[in-house]
Amino acid sequence: MTFVHALVIGLAGGSGSGKTTIARTIMERVGRDRIAFVQHDAYYCDQSDVPFEIRAQVNYDHPDSLETSLLIKHLHALRAGQAVDVPVYDFSLFTRTHETTRIEPRPVILVEGILIFVDPLLRALFDIKLYVDAPADLRFIRRLQRDMTERNRSPESVIRQYLETVRPMHIEFVEPTKRFADLILPEGGFNPVGVDVIVARVRAMLEAKG
Amino acid sequence: MTFVHALVIGLAGGSGSGKTTIARTIMERVGRDRIAFVQHDAYYCDQSDVPFEIRAQVNYDHPDSLETSLLIKHLHALRAGQAVDVPVYDFSLFTRTHETTRIEPRPVILVEGILIFVDPLLRALFDIKLYVDAPADLRFIRRLQRDMTERNRSPESVIRQYLETVRPMHIEFVEPTKRFADLILPEGGFNPVGVDVIVARVRAMLEAKG
Repeated sequence: MTFVHALVIGLAGGSGSGKTTIARTIMERVGRDRIAFVQHDAYYCDQSDVPFEIRAQVNYDHPDSLETSLLIKHLHALRAGQAVDVPVYDFSLFTRTHETTRIEPRPVILVEGILIFVDPLLRALFDIKLYVDAPADLRFIRRLQRDMTERNRSPESVIRQYLETVRPMHIEFVEPTKRFADLILPEGGFNPVGVDVIVARVRAMLEAKG
Repeated sequence: MTFVHALVIGLAGGSGSGKTTIARTIMERVGRDRIAFVQHDAYYCDQSDVPFEIRAQVNYDHPDSLETSLLIKHLHALRAGQAVDVPVYDFSLFTRTHETTRIEPRPVILVEGILIFVDPLLRALFDIKLYVDAPADLRFIRRLQRDMTERNRSPESVIRQYLETVRPMHIEFVEPTKRFADLILPEGGFNPVGVDVIVARVRAMLEAKG
C-alpha cells in the first residue's frame, strides 16, 4: 500500500490541554481506517542498561528523554507506505518492553505529543502543525483528575511532579513552540467548531486523492 | 435569493495583525461571488450633529465608536437572503457620508473587525470565530508602514495615536476576546497552511449545499 503523499498532521500542546480528545475526535470523524496515529510518548528512550534507581528519575517532560530520531525514521517509512513497529514503553519500569505495536501506513498520519515541535527535523515533516492551547490552571486540573483516577496518584504527588518538572519544562520547551503552529485550537477537548474546520481540511485532501 | 443558512464567519484580531490579507485570500480562494464581505469599520457612528472639533477626537479603537446594533441588523438581513445598504464613513470628516454601499446576500458572510467579538449579541451570530494573532511589535511595524505609505502620516503621529488609543484599547478590548475564538491563526497575513484549513471548511459547506 503506497501513497503519493500522506498528509502528516502534528498535534502539540501542554499536558492536560486536551490533545488526546482532539485526536480521538479527528479519528472518529475522518475514519480510523484512514489515519495512522502515532504518539511521541511511545518513543521514550530505552533505559534497560541503566540501573533502576537511576532510570526512575527520568524527566519525562524534557526533550532528551525521547528517541525522536526513531520517530522521524518511522514517519519517513509511513510516508513511503511502509508499516512500522512502534516501541511499547513501561512507565512502571521506566524503560521499553520487548513488545512493539505495528502501525500500518494510511493516507493521514496524525502525530501527537507535547514536544513534537521542538526538533526542527521532526517539525519539518508536518504538513499541518496544530497547537492545542488551554489555560494553565485548567490544564493542571485535568492532569490532577486524570492522575488521581487513572493512575491512583495522590494529589500531593501530582502537585510535586507538576511543580518540579511538568511546569518548568512546559515553560521552557512546550509553550515556545506554539509560534511554529499553523493553527491554534483554544479550549482543547471541547472545541467542536475548531475540530470541524480541521476535519474538513483532512476530508478535502482524502477526496482529492479519490 | 435565499439560503437555508448562510455560514457566518467572524475574523477578528488587532490592528496590523494581517486580518485584511487573510480575508482577501479567503475570498480569492473561495470565490468573491460566494462571499458577502462586511467590515465593522463601515459602521462607525454617524456624528453629523456633533461639532467638527469634538467629533475629530473620536477614539476609533473603543467599542462605543461603532454602531454595532446596525451591523447586527444587517447580518440578520443578509442571513435571511436580503441585500443591505452599508454606510460609507469619511475618516477625514469624522462622520458618515450620505452614500451607502449595497451588499448582496451570499452563502458565506465574512465579517472583519478588531472589535467584532466584544458584543455578545454580535458574537452569537458567528458560526466560526477566527482570531488572527501576531506579535505586538510586528503589528505596530505593519501599522506604521501602512499609515506612512497609504495615509501620508508622520512616524511621530502614528506613534502618538498608537500609544494613546490603539495600544490601550487593544489590551482592554481586543486581546481579551481571543478566548472566544474557535481557531487562532498565528502570523497573520502569511499563513498559507492555516488559510488552507479555513478554505477547506468553507468549500465543504458550499459543496454540501450543492
